[in-house]
Amino acid sequence: MAKPILFYFDFSSPYGYVAAQRIAPIAARHRRDVLWRPILLGAIFKSTGGRPLKEFGLKWDYSRHELARTARRHNFPFVVPQNFPFAAVAASRAFYWLEATDRGRAAPFARAVFRGAFAEGRDMSLPIAVAAAAATVGIDDAALMGALDDQLWKDRLRAETDGALAKGVFGSPFFLIDGEPFWGAEHLSEIDAWLASGGW
Amino acid sequence: MAKPILFYFDFSSPYGYVAAQRIAPIAARHRRDVLWRPILLGAIFKSTGGRPLKEFGLKWDYSRHELARTARRHNFPFVVPQNFPFAAVAASRAFYWLEATDRGRAAPFARAVFRGAFAEGRDMSLPIAVAAAAATVGIDDAALMGALDDQLWKDRLRAETDGALAKGVFGSPFFLIDGEPFWGAEHLSEIDAWLASGGW
Repeated sequence: MAKPILFYFDFSSPYGYVAAQRIAPIAARHRRDVLWRPILLGAIFKSTGGRPLKEFGLKWDYSRHELARTARRHNFPFVVPQNFPFAAVAASRAFYWLEATDRGRAAPFARAVFRGAFAEGRDMSLPIAVAAAAATVGIDDAALMGALDDQLWKDRLRAETDGALAKGVFGSPFFLIDGEPFWGAEHLSEIDAWLASGGW
Repeated sequence: MAKPILFYFDFSSPYGYVAAQRIAPIAARHRRDVLWRPILLGAIFKSTGGRPLKEFGLKWDYSRHELARTARRHNFPFVVPQNFPFAAVAASRAFYWLEATDRGRAAPFARAVFRGAFAEGRDMSLPIAVAAAAATVGIDDAALMGALDDQLWKDRLRAETDGALAKGVFGSPFFLIDGEPFWGAEHLSEIDAWLASGGW
C-alpha cells in the first residue's frame, strides 16, 4: 500500500472540519490511509506572522458564507461555535494519547471533536467537552482526563507542531502526499485528481 | 442571456492570472459573458489590513509551488516577474479607457497584460510595457499612453476599486455571479459546477 496521506489540521479550524468531513472517501478511493495530525496553529502563527481568520473582517464574512455553502453542497452540518477560535490544546493532547494507546479510535475521536465544535457548536476548548466527545466513540473519558496533564502528551503535541512547521505547514488543513503539499479544503477535488493520475 | 460574471482582479495577482487563463471557457460553456474588473488590491488592503502574498514567507514558498503546479495541470506558462508585486495603475487605467472607447479589445488587452507579467516576466508597472502589450492586440499605443494621464481614468479606477470593496471584494481573483461571491482561483471548478446546477 502506498504511503499515508499526512493530514495536518487545528481542531479550531473550520476548513480543517470541512477537510475532515471529506478526506476519508477520497483516500479510500485511492487505497491510501490518512494519518491525522492535529497541530496548534497559534504556535505556528507566532513564527509565520499568520493571524486567525476571524481577525479579517470582510474575509471572515466571506468565509462564513463559503463554509455554509460548502456544507450544503457536500451535505453536512455547519455552525460557527460561540467560542471561536478556541484553544485546541486538550483535544490535541488527547488525540496523541489515544493514537499511542488505542490507535483505531484516534480518527473517530478527531471526527467527534470536530463534530462537537462545528456541527453542535460546543466549546471544545473545555476538557470536559473533549471527554464527552470521546465517550461517544467508546473512549474511557476518565482515562482521557488523566492523560491531559501528562507531560508526555504536552511534549508530543509541541513536537508535532514544530515538526509540521519544519515541513512548511503554515495553515489548516494542510496535506502532504508523498511530499507534495496541498493547502486548503478547496484543494480536495484536486487531491482526488492528483491521486487518480499520479500527479502532473 | 443571463447576467455577466463579474471578475475582479489585480493585474499584479498571480492567482488573478490563473483565473484569467481559465474563466473564458467556463463562462462560455454556460453562455455567460465575463465582465473584467481590474482593481488595485493595495488600496483595498489599506481598508482591510490585508497584506501582499509575498510578505508571508512559508505561504509564498507554497504559493509559488502551487501556481507552477496549477499551470502545469492546465497547460499554460507561469513565471514570477522580477518586479513583484508591481503597481498595476497604468494597466488598470488603460483597461477602463479601452473599455469605454474600444470595448471589444478590453479583455484581449487584459490577457496581454497578464501574459506580459506572468508568462514573459516583464515589468508591467511600466507604461511602456503596457503600451507594448496593447500593441500586440491591435491597440494604438500612442493613444493609450495619452489616456494614462487623463483624470477621467484615474477617477474611474478609484471608483471601481471603491465599488468593489463596497461589494465585499477583498482579494484577487474575486467573482460575483448573480450576487454570489467566490474568492480564489481554486474555486473555478466549483464555479463551473455552480453554473451548471444553478447553485446549491
